[in-house]
Amino acid sequence: MIRLYYAAHTCALASHIALEEAGAEYSAVRISFADEEQRKPEYLAINPKGRVPAMVTEQGILTETPATLAFIAQSFPQARLAPLEDPFRFAEVQAFNSYLCSTVHVAHAHRMRGHRWVDDPAAIAAMQRKVPETVGACFELIERKMLRGPWVMGDIYTICDPYLFTLAQWMEKDGVDPSRFPKVSDHRNRMSERAAVRKAIAEELA
Amino acid sequence: MIRLYYAAHTCALASHIALEEAGAEYSAVRISFADEEQRKPEYLAINPKGRVPAMVTEQGILTETPATLAFIAQSFPQARLAPLEDPFRFAEVQAFNSYLCSTVHVAHAHRMRGHRWVDDPAAIAAMQRKVPETVGACFELIERKMLRGPWVMGDIYTICDPYLFTLAQWMEKDGVDPSRFPKVSDHRNRMSERAAVRKAIAEELA
Repeated sequence: MIRLYYAAHTCALASHIALEEAGAEYSAVRISFADEEQRKPEYLAINPKGRVPAMVTEQGILTETPATLAFIAQSFPQARLAPLEDPFRFAEVQAFNSYLCSTVHVAHAHRMRGHRWVDDPAAIAAMQRKVPETVGACFELIERKMLRGPWVMGDIYTICDPYLFTLAQWMEKDGVDPSRFPKVSDHRNRMSERAAVRKAIAEELA
Repeated sequence: MIRLYYAAHTCALASHIALEEAGAEYSAVRISFADEEQRKPEYLAINPKGRVPAMVTEQGILTETPATLAFIAQSFPQARLAPLEDPFRFAEVQAFNSYLCSTVHVAHAHRMRGHRWVDDPAAIAAMQRKVPETVGACFELIERKMLRGPWVMGDIYTICDPYLFTLAQWMEKDGVDPSRFPKVSDHRNRMSERAAVRKAIAEELA
């Protein structure tokens, strides 16, 4: 059985939704960032990076959302969460998720986690000021060039969808007006209605 | 035939090496960052992100190094550049490459590309000051917890190896002393001797 370590309001939600969509047997274990549980030795033994998600499988531990999502898609092929039979189309899925991980999530992280990259409080404030612009530019590109509709990859629902949904949830707090992005907003609305999404969110906020 | 768009001294080198290791038929097309070719309409039509690498395949265009590397490994299975038959081990490869992309490369980028996240020159300087610490911490984790040796994934050479080699090349300019990391340094030395690595580097610097 899979064990997913998550914290509320983090990118771990994407893996949580994907496990639900896959019909996987799993348990979800909450890590409290408020209590800094992610820096305690018990958790660092699971994920030495001190981040979420971490996914404990029968074969070992996985981290990094693009990897946990790819693992879920490949381990539950009957759920058809990625075009597994076609290396090009599978790589398109990986490219989208890699962009979310290394560019969109990173742009967002400069609002709350600026201390990762600077020590000076004035520089942290300067970072925060630019977040609406950088996160907005990411969603502009997603809206215009990447989100095919109705799902990210077009007609098929994939592991890109819960990941986009998860990061799009942060837009308002990042100072970005969602009404600028009708396709992304429509995607968010349709995702919110899925049973898997409702169940994962209810479990995380319970 | 595959066409790889690269710029010298960038992460595109990882895909370039992997194409060589795979025995792929490909051509490499240089983009001059000095001439800002990556922002010209001709290139933005290929990659609207204005970054490298971009890989033009017979099925379409791919970006993001973790995705181009996974595509190369899956498209040339005889080269055995990833444990393709095992979803867990393949996800481990993806997790390592995702860490390089979203954490190590991002830490490094705060030295030369701080304008992505702040406008204030003092904040850009503050970012640069912390790069030796943040990049050093990444390689500390890789040395202690991730690089199994002799290759990243242990006894098998994978698409993780050219990617680690590429980013490890930037360590000195990031103000990090490579002698702190004997395993990473040994990996760099052994990578430098591979024919595929020599050929890719020679082509990029010609």
